[in-house]
Amino acid sequence: MRGKDVFIVQPTGNPTNENLMQLLIFIETVRRDSAGRITAVVPYYGYGRTDKKDQPRVPITARLVADLIHTAGADRFLTIDLHAGQIQGFFTIPTDELTARHLMVEYFQEKNLQDAVVVAPDIGAVRRSRNFAQDLRLPLAFIEKRRSLQEGSILDMSNLIGDVDGKDAILVDDEIDTGGTIVRAAQLLRKCGARHIYAAVTHAVFSDPAPERLRNSEFTEVVVTDTLFLPPEKRCDKITILSVASLLGEVIWRIHKGISVGDLFNE
Amino acid sequence: MRGKDVFIVQPTGNPTNENLMQLLIFIETVRRDSAGRITAVVPYYGYGRTDKKDQPRVPITARLVADLIHTAGADRFLTIDLHAGQIQGFFTIPTDELTARHLMVEYFQEKNLQDAVVVAPDIGAVRRSRNFAQDLRLPLAFIEKRRSLQEGSILDMSNLIGDVDGKDAILVDDEIDTGGTIVRAAQLLRKCGARHIYAAVTHAVFSDPAPERLRNSEFTEVVVTDTLFLPPEKRCDKITILSVASLLGEVIWRIHKGISVGDLFNE
Amino acid sequence: MRGKDVFIVQPTGNPTNENLMQLLIFIETVRRDSAGRITAVVPYYGYGRTDKKDQPRVPITARLVADLIHTAGADRFLTIDLHAGQIQGFFTIPTDELTARHLMVEYFQEKNLQDAVVVAPDIGAVRRSRNFAQDLRLPLAFIEKRRSLQEGSILDMSNLIGDVDGKDAILVDDEIDTGGTIVRAAQLLRKCGARHIYAAVTHAVFSDPAPERLRNSEFTEVVVTDTLFLPPEKRCDKITILSVASLLGEVIWRIHKGISVGDLFNE
Amino acid sequence: MRGKDVFIVQPTGNPTNENLMQLLIFIETVRRDSAGRITAVVPYYGYGRTDKKDQPRVPITARLVADLIHTAGADRFLTIDLHAGQIQGFFTIPTDELTARHLMVEYFQEKNLQDAVVVAPDIGAVRRSRNFAQDLRLPLAFIEKRRSLQEGSILDMSNLIGDVDGKDAILVDDEIDTGGTIVRAAQLLRKCGARHIYAAVTHAVFSDPAPERLRNSEFTEVVVTDTLFLPPEKRCDKITILSVASLLGEVIWRIHKGISVGDLFNE
Amino acid sequence: MRGKDVFIVQPTGNPTNENLMQLLIFIETVRRDSAGRITAVVPYYGYGRTDKKDQPRVPITARLVADLIHTAGADRFLTIDLHAGQIQGFFTIPTDELTARHLMVEYFQEKNLQDAVVVAPDIGAVRRSRNFAQDLRLPLAFIEKRRSLQEGSILDMSNLIGDVDGKDAILVDDEIDTGGTIVRAAQLLRKCGARHIYAAVTHAVFSDPAPERLRNSEFTEVVVTDTLFLPPEKRCDKITILSVASLLGEVIWRIHKGISVGDLFNE
Amino acid sequence: MRGKDVFIVQPTGNPTNENLMQLLIFIETVRRDSAGRITAVVPYYGYGRTDKKDQPRVPITARLVADLIHTAGADRFLTIDLHAGQIQGFFTIPTDELTARHLMVEYFQEKNLQDAVVVAPDIGAVRRSRNFAQDLRLPLAFIEKRRSLQEGSILDMSNLIGDVDGKDAILVDDEIDTGGTIVRAAQLLRKCGARHIYAAVTHAVFSDPAPERLRNSEFTEVVVTDTLFLPPEKRCDKITILSVASLLGEVIWRIHKGISVGDLFNE
Repeated sequence: MRGKDVFIVQPTGNPTNENLMQLLIFIETVRRDSAGRITAVVPYYGYGRTDKKDQPRVPITARLVADLIHTAGADRFLTIDLHAGQIQGFFTIPTDELTARHLMVEYFQEKNLQDAVVVAPDIGAVRRSRNFAQDLRLPLAFIEKRRSLQEGSILDMSNLIGDVDGKDAILVDDEIDTGGTIVRAAQLLRKCGARHIYAAVTHAVFSDPAPERLRNSEFTEVVVTDTLFLPPEKRCDKITILSVASLLGEVIWRIHKGISVGDLFNE
Repeated sequence: MRGKDVFIVQPTGNPTNENLMQLLIFIETVRRDSAGRITAVVPYYGYGRTDKKDQPRVPITARLVADLIHTAGADRFLTIDLHAGQIQGFFTIPTDELTARHLMVEYFQEKNLQDAVVVAPDIGAVRRSRNFAQDLRLPLAFIEKRRSLQEGSILDMSNLIGDVDGKDAILVDDEIDTGGTIVRAAQLLRKCGARHIYAAVTHAVFSDPAPERLRNSEFTEVVVTDTLFLPPEKRCDKITILSVASLLGEVIWRIHKGISVGDLFNE
Repeated sequence: MRGKDVFIVQPTGNPTNENLMQLLIFIETVRRDSAGRITAVVPYYGYGRTDKKDQPRVPITARLVADLIHTAGADRFLTIDLHAGQIQGFFTIPTDELTARHLMVEYFQEKNLQDAVVVAPDIGAVRRSRNFAQDLRLPLAFIEKRRSLQEGSILDMSNLIGDVDGKDAILVDDEIDTGGTIVRAAQLLRKCGARHIYAAVTHAVFSDPAPERLRNSEFTEVVVTDTLFLPPEKRCDKITILSVASLLGEVIWRIHKGISVGDLFNE
Repeated sequence: MRGKDVFIVQPTGNPTNENLMQLLIFIETVRRDSAGRITAVVPYYGYGRTDKKDQPRVPITARLVADLIHTAGADRFLTIDLHAGQIQGFFTIPTDELTARHLMVEYFQEKNLQDAVVVAPDIGAVRRSRNFAQDLRLPLAFIEKRRSLQEGSILDMSNLIGDVDGKDAILVDDEIDTGGTIVRAAQLLRKCGARHIYAAVTHAVFSDPAPERLRNSEFTEVVVTDTLFLPPEKRCDKITILSVASLLGEVIWRIHKGISVGDLFNE
Repeated sequence: MRGKDVFIVQPTGNPTNENLMQLLIFIETVRRDSAGRITAVVPYYGYGRTDKKDQPRVPITARLVADLIHTAGADRFLTIDLHAGQIQGFFTIPTDELTARHLMVEYFQEKNLQDAVVVAPDIGAVRRSRNFAQDLRLPLAFIEKRRSLQEGSILDMSNLIGDVDGKDAILVDDEIDTGGTIVRAAQLLRKCGARHIYAAVTHAVFSDPAPERLRNSEFTEVVVTDTLFLPPEKRCDKITILSVASLLGEVIWRIHKGISVGDLFNE
Repeated sequence: MRGKDVFIVQPTGNPTNENLMQLLIFIETVRRDSAGRITAVVPYYGYGRTDKKDQPRVPITARLVADLIHTAGADRFLTIDLHAGQIQGFFTIPTDELTARHLMVEYFQEKNLQDAVVVAPDIGAVRRSRNFAQDLRLPLAFIEKRRSLQEGSILDMSNLIGDVDGKDAILVDDEIDTGGTIVRAAQLLRKCGARHIYAAVTHAVFSDPAPERLRNSEFTEVVVTDTLFLPPEKRCDKITILSVASLLGEVIWRIHKGISVGDLFNE
C-alpha cells in the first residue's frame, strides 16, 4: 500500500452500520499502512436522509458519518446522488458527487414517450425531479404529503399538484427504501388518470417489503442503478437496472490522474 | 467577561463580509477575555444560499462560515430560519434554529382570508411553503423556474404548478434579497388570476433595487420580520414588520438557564 | 437534555458494529441537543483485542474506535476490564477503567478452595492472572501456545508452564468469545492432572459455538459477569453470572458528583 | 484546479474585512475543487497591528486571521514585511515573509545622501529602522511618544532621541495608514533642524486623510511599494512607488519549484 | 483531582527542557485524572526569546511550546512579563500575562533618584523601557547594537542614543541570562558619564557566568524578582530580589473565583 | 529543506526530557522550513514504560509523547522494539516498529547452545520471550514477581515458573535501565540451577548503577544493540553490542522510496 493512491469502494446499504464500520476499519488499516492517498468511494451514502434537525432530539447522522470517515483517515470522498446537495458541505475533505441522472435521462429519451410528465413523489424530491424534467423537456408535477389532525387522529394526506391526466408519468427520487412512499405515489397517479407510470430512482435500497410492494404496484417499469447490489430474489420483471460502473470507473481514473471531473459532465 | 455566559447578537446582512468579520473578532476578543460560554446569535445567516456545490468551481460558503465561527471560538450558535435545514449540520458546535413561521402564521390567521392558497416562489421554498400551508390548512402551489436553450439563447421560464385563480395567494420564502424572484412570482400569480397577493418572508435583506421593486409590485402586503434592521427609506406602505425580539429574548433566557428550547414550540 | 450530565450505557458485544454505530449516533444526538457532559459507558469494549499492529496490513481498531467515540462528542469514557491497560491511552478524553476482579476474587475466596492454582490460558492473560493469583495468594501457571512449522504444515502447540497436578485450577481471562482457547486450556489442564477446573472471565461474549463448547467442557464452573447480557439459551448449569450493576452504579454516581473513583478501590 | 499548485494573491488593505473574506472564500473554493497545494499570497497583512493584548478586552486579530486562513484550507502563507516578526508564529502552516527593505535600501543608496540619519517614527518601528540604518551604514535616532496626565488632561508628547540637526532624515516604518504618526514625526524632525526629510515605508494603506496630509507635509519624498494598489487620486509628486512584483514573482516561482527562498536573500 | 480547579506552578528556567517536560507530564496526569480546569502557571516562560523567524532555518520555539502546553491539556495559561507581547497570540487557550513593572516602579520611586534616565540595553527592550520611563516620568535612552563588516571581520558595535552624562541610569530588560548584554551596557553607560547604574529586570535566569559578571560589574544595584528561584550561591550584595508571590497569589485567587484580573491593574 | 524527505534520528535515552525536547524543536524547525515530509526516527522510545494507568494519579506519558511528536509536525514515526505493541496505537501518524529480535536470534543460533531455555524476567517480558523462544525452538520459563503483605511489611517475592535446572538460560527483555530486575533474575536462575546465563535485551539504557551491577552479575554475556550509544566507561567484558545500523538504514531507504517495509521481515 505504501505510497499508493488507494480507492476503497464500499456502498453503505443494508446492513448500513455493518458496512459503514467496515469502511472505517478499511480506511484506518490502509492509512496505518502508509497509503499515499485514500479515497472513500461510497456509491450509496447510507445515512443521507438524516441530514437535518427538523425536530428536537434527532441526530444529524449524515454529518456524523462524514466526520467518522474523516477521522478514520480518508483524504477524499466520492459518491453518487446524495439525498441533498448540502451533504457535500458536511465533509471537511474534498468530495465529488456524481449523478446518475444523465444515464437515466438518456434511457428515457430512447423510450420516446409521448405526452409525459415528471412527478416528484414528495417534497424532498422536487429539485431532483425538476432537473430531470428540464433535461427531458417535460412538465413537472408533485405530490404533497401533509399531516393533519382530524377528529383526534393524525391523518397523512397526499395531494397531487399539477396535472397527469391521460399522460405517462415518471416518478423521480434518489432512493427506494421500503417503497411505501413511491408505491402510494403511483396509486395516487393512477387515481388521477395517469397512463403508464414509471419510476427513475438511483439507489435500490429495497428493504422489506419493497420487493413485494413493487411487484404488486401500478408501475410499468422501475428504473434503478447498481450503486447497490440487488440480489436476484429482490428483482422482478418491472425492475430495470442501469449500470454506473463505467461512470465510476472513468471518474476514479480521472481523480487518480488529476484530470478534471467537472469537464466530464460539461462535454 | 471572565466566566460569564456571553451572547453576541450580530445579523450578517449587508455588508455581509464586514458584519461577519466583526462577529468573528468579537467572539475572539471575548474568548481571550475568558468568557465562560459564548453563543453567537445570528438572526440572519448571510451566506445560507451558498450551501451546496451544484456545479464545479463554486464554494460552499455556508460551511466555511460555520467553520470560521467555530475557529473564532463560539461554543453555540443560535439563528432564525436558515435557508436549508441541513446548514445546521455544517456546524460542529450545538445550534438552535428558531423559526418565525409561528409568528407569521398567527398574523395571517387573524386576517381570516377566504379561499387562499400558499405559493412557493421557487423550488428552494417548497418545503417552507408546505409547512406554512399545513399550519394555515391551505392548499399549496408552486412556481417552477427552468432554463431552456431555445434558438440559441438561454431562456428562464416560470410555470405555476397548482391553482390560484380567483384566490388570495401567499408567497412564502426565507429572504428577499434584490426582490427579483418574488416580484416576478407576484406578476405570474396576477396573470394566473390571483386576487390579493401577499408575501410572508422572514429576512428582509432588501438589497437594491428591492425597495423600488416592492413599491411597484403587485403585492397587497409584504410581511417580514426584524431579524435585519430595515432602515426607514427602504420601507413603504406595503411592508409590515413583525418582531422576533420577544422570541429571541425568551430563547436566549432559556439557553442561559438551561431550560428546553424545543418545549417552547411544542406547547 | 440541555445542560444535563448524561451517561449513555451501551456494551459493544455482538453485533459489535451495530452496537457501536448506535452508540455513536446516540452520543451525537445528545451533543447536538446541548447535553452538559456526555459519558460513554461501555461495560464491554468490543474491539479491544485489535490493539496492536503485530503484522503488516492489520488495523488498530481499538484506537480507531476510541477516536470515533471522541469525534461523536463524548466527554468521558467508562469501561470495565479492557483487554490491555494501554487501551486507556488510545483515548484522548479522560477514561475510567473499572475491574470486576474484586468481585471475582471475593466469590472464589468464599469457595475456600484447598491447594489451588491460577492459570493464564495464554500469554495475553498472564498479567491479569498474576493479579488474580496475588489477591487469592495462590501460585500461578500459564499455558504457552506457539506455532511451529513441522513437516510442511503449521502446528499450534500448547505447553503448560508451572504445575497443576492434583490441584484445583482457575483459568483467568478477560473474555470468552468462541470459547476455543479456554476450552482447549481446560482439556490441557485435565491432561496435566488438574482436579476441579474453573474459569473466571469478565466478559461473556459467547459467540457460537461457545455455549455448546462450554456445556461439553471439562469445567466445573465458569464464572462471568453481566457486562454483556447473556440470553437464557446461551446459559447452562456450569455458568455463574456475577453482577457488576452496583459497581457501575456507584461509579456513575461518583463521576456525576465529582467524587474520587480511585478511592473506591483503595478502601 | 485538480492537483494544481495554486497561488491566490490578495492583499488585505481597505476594505480589509471585505478583502479578507474574499480571500477565505477563494481558498475554500479552490480546496473543494481539489487543488494540490494552496498558497495564500497576502503582500499586505491587514490586521498586523492588532498583534498583542496590551490591555484587557482587546482582540489579537492577527492571530485570529491566521487561524481563519488555516481553517479555510491554505497550505502555505506568503507575505511581505509583517508589522512584527512574531506574527509568523501565529501561523500553523509554513510561512515565508519577504522584505522590501533591500529594494528600499538600494533606492536610497543611489541617492548618495551626505550626512543622513535613519529615524524610527515610534517605538514599534525601532527594529525595522535599525536594520535599515545598518544596511545604509547610517546612524539611528527615534521618536518616543508617551502619554502623560498633566493638569487633568492626557497629553501625547513626542521626544526625539538622537540627533538630526543639519542632517537628511529617513523615517522608516512598515505602513502609512492615516498618516498621522509619520507626518507629525516629520514636523518634529523639521523643528529639530533636519534638512531633507524622507519616508521609506512598505505598505501604502493611505486611508483618509493620508493623501491630503502627505501632500501638505514636510516630506521631500515618500517612498512606498506597490504591495497595495495606490489609486492615482491618492498619489502626489512626493510619492515614489517601488515595485515588489519581480521579487514576489521570483519567490512564487521558487516555492513552486521547491527551491530555497532563503538563499535569494543571502546571495 | 476530580472536578477540581487545578493550578500547576512551574517556571521553565534552567534546565528549561527538563522543567518544560515535567510541566507537560503534570498537566497530562491531572487531565487524565479528570481535573475540572487546569491552569498552567509559568512565571518565567523559558523559550520566549525564540519568538520569530528572523533568518531561515530557525525555529519559533515560543509557538511550539505554546502548542505543547495546549496538547498536554491545559485550559488556561498564566505568566509574567513575556519577552514580547505577541507571544500571547501563540496560545490558543486564554492567557493572562502579568507584569512585575508596577512592583519595580514602586521600588524605584522610593529611591527618589534625582536626575535619572531609563535606558534600554538593546532594541528588544525599548518598549518595556519606555513604559518604565513613562511610569517614573523619566527620560529614555537606548543602546543600539549593530553588526558591521570591517576589514574582513564582523564587529559588534554599540552606540548610546540619548543622554546619560552625569545622571543615574536604570537599565530595564525582561531577563538576565548570561548577563553579557546588560553588563556591557553598564560599561558603555559608565564610559558615557553615568553616575549610579541600576538594572530592573524581571527574570533572573543567571546562567553562568552571570553571577560572576554581575559581581564585577559597574552596577550599583540589580533589581530582579523571584519568578525564578535564585540559589544563594548565585546572589551577591548587588542583587535585590522583589517578590511576585502576593501578585501571583491574588491573580490565581481571582481566576479561581472568576473575578476580573484586568481590574487589578487599573485600580 | 524545502520539499525534501527529512529523517530526524534521535534516540530518547538519558537525559530523556532533554533529548525529547530537542527532537520536538528539530521537527518544528524543519516543518517551518517547508520540509516535504518529516519522519521522526526514534530507535529507543524513552517513555515506553509509562504506557498505562494501572493506578490512579499516574500519567500515560507514552501517549503524551506521541501527541507531542504529532503536534511538533512529524508526518511519520519509526522506532525499534517498543515496550508494548499497543504504543503504536498511541500515534495518530503512521508508524513503523522494527524489531532487533531477528538480529539477536541469529546471534544466539550461532552459539549453538545445547539444552537451553528462554526466560522472561518479569510479566511484561513474557510475550517478547515467547517470540524469542519460538524462533530458537527453545522452551520458555518466566519469573513472576508479586507483592505480599507479610507481618506488616511489603515483600517482593519472585518465583520461577518453569524449569532451568542444568540448562543454559537466556533472559529476554526490551531494555535494561538500572539493571535491578534482570540482575536479580539472573541470581534466581543461578539458585535454580541454571548453567550459563545470558541476556538478550534491545535497549542498553544503563542508568546508574547498571554498569556496576552487570559487571558483578551472574551473567556470562549480556547482548544488547546500539539503539542507544553506550559510552566506553559503561561497557565491560560481558557486554556484546549488535548493530541495528544496517537494519535502520535499509528501512529508511525503503520508506523514502515507498517500498514495502513489511516485506523485509517476511523474506
